Amino acid sequence: MATKKLLQALNGEKTERPPIWLMRQAGRYLPEYRKVRAEAGSFLDLCYTPKRAVEVTLQPIRRFGFDAAILFSDILVVPHGLGQDVWFVEGEGPKLAPIRDTNGLKALKPEGMSAFLAPVYEAVGELSATLPDNVTLVGFSGAPWTVATYMVEGGSSRDFANTKGWAFSDPEGFGNLIDILVDGIATHLCNQIEAGAETVQLFDSWAGVLPDMAFRRWIIEPTRAIVEQVRARYPEVPIIGFPRGAGIYYPEYAAETGVTAVSLDTTVPTRWAADTLQPKMPVQGNLDPMILLAGGEGLAESVDHIIGELNNGPFIFNLGHGIIKETPVENVESLIRLVRGEG
Amino acid sequence: MATKKLLQALNGEKTERPPIWLMRQAGRYLPEYRKVRAEAGSFLDLCYTPKRAVEVTLQPIRRFGFDAAILFSDILVVPHGLGQDVWFVEGEGPKLAPIRDTNGLKALKPEGMSAFLAPVYEAVGELSATLPDNVTLVGFSGAPWTVATYMVEGGSSRDFANTKGWAFSDPEGFGNLIDILVDGIATHLCNQIEAGAETVQLFDSWAGVLPDMAFRRWIIEPTRAIVEQVRARYPEVPIIGFPRGAGIYYPEYAAETGVTAVSLDTTVPTRWAADTLQPKMPVQGNLDPMILLAGGEGLAESVDHIIGELNNGPFIFNLGHGIIKETPVENVESLIRLVRGEG
Repeated sequence: MATKKLLQALNGEKTERPPIWLMRQAGRYLPEYRKVRAEAGSFLDLCYTPKRAVEVTLQPIRRFGFDAAILFSDILVVPHGLGQDVWFVEGEGPKLAPIRDTNGLKALKPEGMSAFLAPVYEAVGELSATLPDNVTLVGFSGAPWTVATYMVEGGSSRDFANTKGWAFSDPEGFGNLIDILVDGIATHLCNQIEAGAETVQLFDSWAGVLPDMAFRRWIIEPTRAIVEQVRARYPEVPIIGFPRGAGIYYPEYAAETGVTAVSLDTTVPTRWAADTLQPKMPVQGNLDPMILLAGGEGLAESVDHIIGELNNGPFIFNLGHGIIKETPVENVESLIRLVRGEG
Repeated sequence: MATKKLLQALNGEKTERPPIWLMRQAGRYLPEYRKVRAEAGSFLDLCYTPKRAVEVTLQPIRRFGFDAAILFSDILVVPHGLGQDVWFVEGEGPKLAPIRDTNGLKALKPEGMSAFLAPVYEAVGELSATLPDNVTLVGFSGAPWTVATYMVEGGSSRDFANTKGWAFSDPEGFGNLIDILVDGIATHLCNQIEAGAETVQLFDSWAGVLPDMAFRRWIIEPTRAIVEQVRARYPEVPIIGFPRGAGIYYPEYAAETGVTAVSLDTTVPTRWAADTLQPKMPVQGNLDPMILLAGGEGLAESVDHIIGELNNGPFIFNLGHGIIKETPVENVESLIRLVRGEG
């Protein structure tokens, strides 16, 4: 069996050159993705058609030889699987029939989720059987707070007025939604592991908007509950937490949620992460996707800087946020050469 | 002369109850503001008509008795004064004729700024002569990075693609824009102080989107340069820095820019700020505007929490971001009673 560098790093081993994968590596910056996307009906059809989901997951592996393949899916399959209406409007992003109070929770049917999402797990299973044996299969889910923002706002938001309004004025009612999500997300992760995912990442993309006590209640506590549930069934499977924008909370998140590793957003200073987080767990990150988009000398400098500071401990090279769709494919090729020292 | 509690706090004194003012306290949540706004032509007319700017600045002082009056103006008067086209589209926000390369800088005429913005300084002068003598007059400006994002994007942005693209691919050219802004902003602050502002705040609203080395280069260095220029002329005037979203960089920003005090955004944990920042300088903040919007028990709890943790040192009560226009006036009244212990 070939070595899986990503699992080595998650196991706390330092590698001479870090493993690399990119958040949203299967996606619109790739012409071969756009071709499959055009053939699929809706975006969700693409997620729910195993053959297509497998194909787009494999595309960046074939083209770039990344060390990990992350299942092509979306964080909104969980609310969809829980029974909420979810659809995508081209050019506008996701839309959901918003749930804004305890009464709205009645629309959810958590017991139907695993059956509804069976095509997702089928794709994981096919990937597990297909991937080259040096490539790690990564499953994922959105974290409860982040998924809740979409469920409550009915889509993307700039200020999260409805979600915060509910959480601040009726924490108990909002807590019921979070509890449903904790169980649903833990089940979704376990189902992916059962089907063959070798590690899972929890994306808390909107962790960076909560004050003090609310961060503990709606980010740290639910994440810890999910980690406990998954660990109880799969104690050996590493869990990567990505509390984007957590800033000063990164150490607390790392210490208290039980995650195996943390993914750093672009704003986390690498020296600080090396001193504060990496002695305790592997870290992943954190090139600014805009630097990858710009390419050139700035890209080379940034890669050197990040590797110089973070590759003295267990480290996975990644972006600090998803790749931007305008990114030239050549820049991704350069990035891989730079990270692998094949310059 | 009556005591100015805000200046006391900025001078490092601890007060029994903290002084309070709110970012964007003169604004759309007040019916009396909406009346004046409707009478003015454009939003910029309102900023440039001293009588009206003075009136709306005074409205929240009359109604609530805040400890500080912040000049009613906008961070975009600086690029406007520098010669860039700036206009506001109702419901869409600010628009600017974007500047995206060194060649575009030729459109700027820094030498005309002070004369162009004379009505702003006239408003400051009138406020200085009018305000009750326990109310501190606060001037302000956007900080270079934040102002640059609007100048380069041509308005608001979610990802700052053009600004980051320019900064990452041509740091020297982008640095020329920042240099122009450093001088323009320092002059704008000095002009306000000359006219009667007793302290000034630098708003770096988009400080939280830059990686590592870029944070030092585009946030810390330009801020330090402005502080030096203003200090050289007005060594006694306190300068408040607000690097919103700076997260892990707050201590470095506080230590290296030379600001007198730092304003904390909503995501900064108060315990951490009390331990890390407040021993070195006064802090200001950081109630989540959404908690003020929601009101009720959550508001009372949050105010207690913030005061309990931060009022053991020099402290100014404020929001962690501007007040939201839907905020009920009664919630602001409750807030002031809570902060002043008049519950």
